[in-house]
Amino acid sequence: MIALPEPRPEILARRAEIIAALGKIVPGEGMIGEELRLKPYETDGLTAYRQVPLAVVLPTSTEQVAAVMRYCHENGIRVVPRGAGTSLSGGALPLADAVVIGLMRMNRILEIDFEDRLAVVEAGVTNLGITKAVEGEGFFYAPDPSSQLACMIGGNVNMNSGGAHCLKYGVTANNMLGLKFVTPQGEIVELGGGHLDAAGYDWLGLLTGSEGQLGIVTEVTVRILRAAEGARAMLAAFKGTEIAGAAVDAIIGSGIIPVALEFMDRPCIHACEAFAHAGYPLDAEAMLIIEVEGSVAEQDALLERIKQICQRFDPISLKVAQTAEESIAIWKGRKGAFGAVGRISPDYLCMDGTIPTGELPFVLKRIGEMSTQYGLQVANVFHAGDGNLHPLIMFDANDPESFRKAENFGADILKLCVEVGGCLTGEHGVGVEKRDLMTAQFAPHELDQQRAIKSAFDPAWLLNPHKVFPLRDAA
Amino acid sequence: MIALPEPRPEILARRAEIIAALGKIVPGEGMIGEELRLKPYETDGLTAYRQVPLAVVLPTSTEQVAAVMRYCHENGIRVVPRGAGTSLSGGALPLADAVVIGLMRMNRILEIDFEDRLAVVEAGVTNLGITKAVEGEGFFYAPDPSSQLACMIGGNVNMNSGGAHCLKYGVTANNMLGLKFVTPQGEIVELGGGHLDAAGYDWLGLLTGSEGQLGIVTEVTVRILRAAEGARAMLAAFKGTEIAGAAVDAIIGSGIIPVALEFMDRPCIHACEAFAHAGYPLDAEAMLIIEVEGSVAEQDALLERIKQICQRFDPISLKVAQTAEESIAIWKGRKGAFGAVGRISPDYLCMDGTIPTGELPFVLKRIGEMSTQYGLQVANVFHAGDGNLHPLIMFDANDPESFRKAENFGADILKLCVEVGGCLTGEHGVGVEKRDLMTAQFAPHELDQQRAIKSAFDPAWLLNPHKVFPLRDAA
Repeated sequence: MIALPEPRPEILARRAEIIAALGKIVPGEGMIGEELRLKPYETDGLTAYRQVPLAVVLPTSTEQVAAVMRYCHENGIRVVPRGAGTSLSGGALPLADAVVIGLMRMNRILEIDFEDRLAVVEAGVTNLGITKAVEGEGFFYAPDPSSQLACMIGGNVNMNSGGAHCLKYGVTANNMLGLKFVTPQGEIVELGGGHLDAAGYDWLGLLTGSEGQLGIVTEVTVRILRAAEGARAMLAAFKGTEIAGAAVDAIIGSGIIPVALEFMDRPCIHACEAFAHAGYPLDAEAMLIIEVEGSVAEQDALLERIKQICQRFDPISLKVAQTAEESIAIWKGRKGAFGAVGRISPDYLCMDGTIPTGELPFVLKRIGEMSTQYGLQVANVFHAGDGNLHPLIMFDANDPESFRKAENFGADILKLCVEVGGCLTGEHGVGVEKRDLMTAQFAPHELDQQRAIKSAFDPAWLLNPHKVFPLRDAA
Repeated sequence: MIALPEPRPEILARRAEIIAALGKIVPGEGMIGEELRLKPYETDGLTAYRQVPLAVVLPTSTEQVAAVMRYCHENGIRVVPRGAGTSLSGGALPLADAVVIGLMRMNRILEIDFEDRLAVVEAGVTNLGITKAVEGEGFFYAPDPSSQLACMIGGNVNMNSGGAHCLKYGVTANNMLGLKFVTPQGEIVELGGGHLDAAGYDWLGLLTGSEGQLGIVTEVTVRILRAAEGARAMLAAFKGTEIAGAAVDAIIGSGIIPVALEFMDRPCIHACEAFAHAGYPLDAEAMLIIEVEGSVAEQDALLERIKQICQRFDPISLKVAQTAEESIAIWKGRKGAFGAVGRISPDYLCMDGTIPTGELPFVLKRIGEMSTQYGLQVANVFHAGDGNLHPLIMFDANDPESFRKAENFGADILKLCVEVGGCLTGEHGVGVEKRDLMTAQFAPHELDQQRAIKSAFDPAWLLNPHKVFPLRDAA
C-alpha cells in the first residue's frame, strides 16, 4: 500500500469557515459539505484507496473554478480535480484535507466546426458525448478508453487516455488542439486552438498527461476526424501466447496498421466466453481480434493480407467477419472483458504498462512464470498493436496478504516492462498506484527535473499532491 | 530589428582560456577558435542577424556534449546549439560571448527496427537521411520541411518542424517516440523510447519545440511509417484567392484529408512558372496543388471527389496527373518556389503563421490590402490544408527603410493571424525573429509561466538565451 498523507489539523479545524467561503463562490447545489454527500467522492476507479475529502465544489464556469483556486491558493488549501472519477491509478483520489473540484456540471459543447475539423467542449463532456455530437455528419473523436461512456474529456486530457483504436489514431495528446485551464494561483490561461502549432514552449503538450498537477482544465478543443466508410474485424486463435505475439509482430512489421489489434490469453478467453457467448475458441492459448477499416474493397484486401500472415503461425482458427453484425459479435467478448474477469474473481488489479511490440512473446512468457511463483491467476487482455499490456491480476480482497502479493506481482510486471525498454504506464497514468515505481523508470536527477516543472507551476504543491512522484525520502 | 545582447566583457576577456579548456574536451578538428573559421557560424537562415560566436565545438558523442555543458555551466558561459543552421527564425543565431555546440558530426543512424516501426538516430542526421535509410523496406519518416536535404533531426525536434505532407501525418511532435538530451547542468537524460506513452509529465513533448532552450538534444527515436502504394497530385486554378480559399475549406470540410494541399497566389505562380516551366496557368489568381495517396483505385476515387468539389468553385482549369511523372511535373514549380521568388526579388522575408483554415479567404484579402498600403509585393505560397501561411514579402536589402517596412508588414500579418484565432508561428519557431511578437499571442502571466519553465531547467538562462521570450522590459 502507498502511504497517503496525514491531513493537516490546522486545515481540518477551519472546515466550517472554508465551506462557508466556497459556498459563496459556488452557491446552492454546487457546494457539498455534508459528510454523507461527500462519501461518494471518497475514491475513484482505484477503489483500494479511500479518503473522504474536506469539501466538494461543482462549478459551472471557468470563472468559478478560478475563484475557487484563488481562495484555496491564498489559504494554503490542497485541491484535487475530478471528472467522472474513473481513474484506474487513483488520479482523482481525494485527500482528507483537500477540496475536490468536480467538473461534471461543465458539460456543454461550445462549438462544432466541420471545416476546421474541431470541437470545443467543456471539461465535463463525456468522451463518447463528443462523438455523439458529430457522428450525424460522419465525424468522430478518435481516442476511445473502455470507460468512454462515463469518462470525461478533462480527465482524458489529464491522463492522456488511449483506447483500443489508438493504434491508428493516437492517444489524447495526438487529438488535442487547445485547452483553457486555471493555474494553481487562479489565473485563466488559453493554449493552442483551431490552428496548427503553438508559439513558445509546448505547454499544451505538457498539460496533457500532467495528471491534474499543473492546472485545472476547464475547456478542450479536440480534433474530430471523418469516420471511415466501414470497419470489419477478424479473429485469429493460436496454440501459444508466444506464437500469437510473434503474429502481432509480423502484422505490424509488414507495415499494416489495423485500426485495432487486441490480444486475449486463455484465462481471458474462457472468462469472456462464459460471460458473452461470443463463440471464442476455448482450445486456444491466445486469440487476436484484428480490425481494419476503409472501403469494402480496402477491408477485403487488408483482411486477406492479414489472414495470409496469420496462416504462417499455424493458427487453430481464423474467422473473418463478413458483415457488420459478425464484427460486433467478435468484439462483444472483448468489450466485456473486465466485467467477465470480475465474475470469476471478484477482485482483480488491472495493470497498465507498455513495451516495444517486439518484446511481446518474451514478456508474456515471464508474466506466466511470475503467475506460478506468486500463486495468483492472471488474465491478459491488451492493445497488442501498440504494446499496451493490461494484465488482470486476480486476488482476494478479504485477505490482506493476497492483496499485498497482487500489488507486488503488479509491480514486478511493470518493472519488467521498463527493463525491456518499455514504460510503467500506457494510458492509466501514474496517480497514486504507480507513484513509488517511478524510480524504476527515472534516475533521481530526472525526477528532480520533473519536480522542478511542478514547482514552476505550483510552488506550494497544493494541486493534486502526493501523486505521480515518489516522496523525496523514497526517491 | 530585434536588439541582440551586448557581449559580456568578462567572458570575452577569458576567450583564450575557454578555448583551451574546450579543446581538451573536444580535441582536434572538433574545436574551432580562429576568427576566420568561426565566420561561417555567424548566422543561420535568418541572415539579417549576425554575430561571430566566441568559439564553436563539434562533439562526436553525448558524453562530450555533457562535458562541454558542465564546463560552460560552471563558468557561466552561454551556449547556442546548432544543427545545419537552416533556421528561418534565427533559432541557431550565435551570440558573441557564447559557445556554439554544432551537432553535425553526430550523424550516425544507431538502430532501425521495422517491427516496432522506429529508428534511433543521432541529432546530426539529416531529415531526408532517415527516409533514405529505411525506404528500401518501404518505410519513410513523415515530416518533410522544405530544407529536408540539409536540416538535421535535432533541429527539427527543437523547432517542431512541419512540411507539405504534415496535413496527413502531423509535425515532428507527432512522429517522435523518444530522445536523449543533455541538461544545462551537463546531466544526460533519456525520455520515452520504443513504447507508447511515458510516465510522469510529457517532457518529451515539452522538449519538442523548446528551441534549444531547455537542453541539447543528442539522440532521437522517431516513428517510421509504411509508405503508401503510390501518390498522385492534381492542380486546380481559380479566378480569385478567396475562391481558392473557399475551395480549400470545402475539401477539408468534406472530411477528405489529402496528403498535401498547397496554395500559390498569382505572383507566386508567375515566379515559379518563369523558373520551372511547370505549365502553371498564368491567367489564374490562385492555384491549388492537391495530392492524395493510396492504391491506384483509392487515388482515383479521392481525386474524382476533389475534382467534383473544385468544380463548384468555377475553376479556370483542373488537371489531374495520370502518371507519377505528371505528378512530379505539377510539384516541380512549388518545390522551387522560394528560389523562384528569389529571382524576381533578391531579398524577401519568409513569414510563417497559422490560421484556422476557415479564415483563409479573409486573411488573404487583408494581406493583399496591406501589400498595397506598405507598397511592398508579396507572394503567397503555403500549406493551405492546415492553415500554415508562408507569405514572402519582397524588399530591397540595400535600403534600410525597405527592410524596416518589410519587418513591420510581416509583424502585421502575424498579428492578423493571432486576431483571427491563429498563431504567430507554424513550423519555423519564434527564435529571434518573432521574440517581441509573443506579447500579441500571450498575456503577461502566460509568458511569465513559460519563463518559469525555462528557469526550472536553466536558472541562469545560459542556454540559447535572448530568444523566444521578449525581454522583460518589453513584455
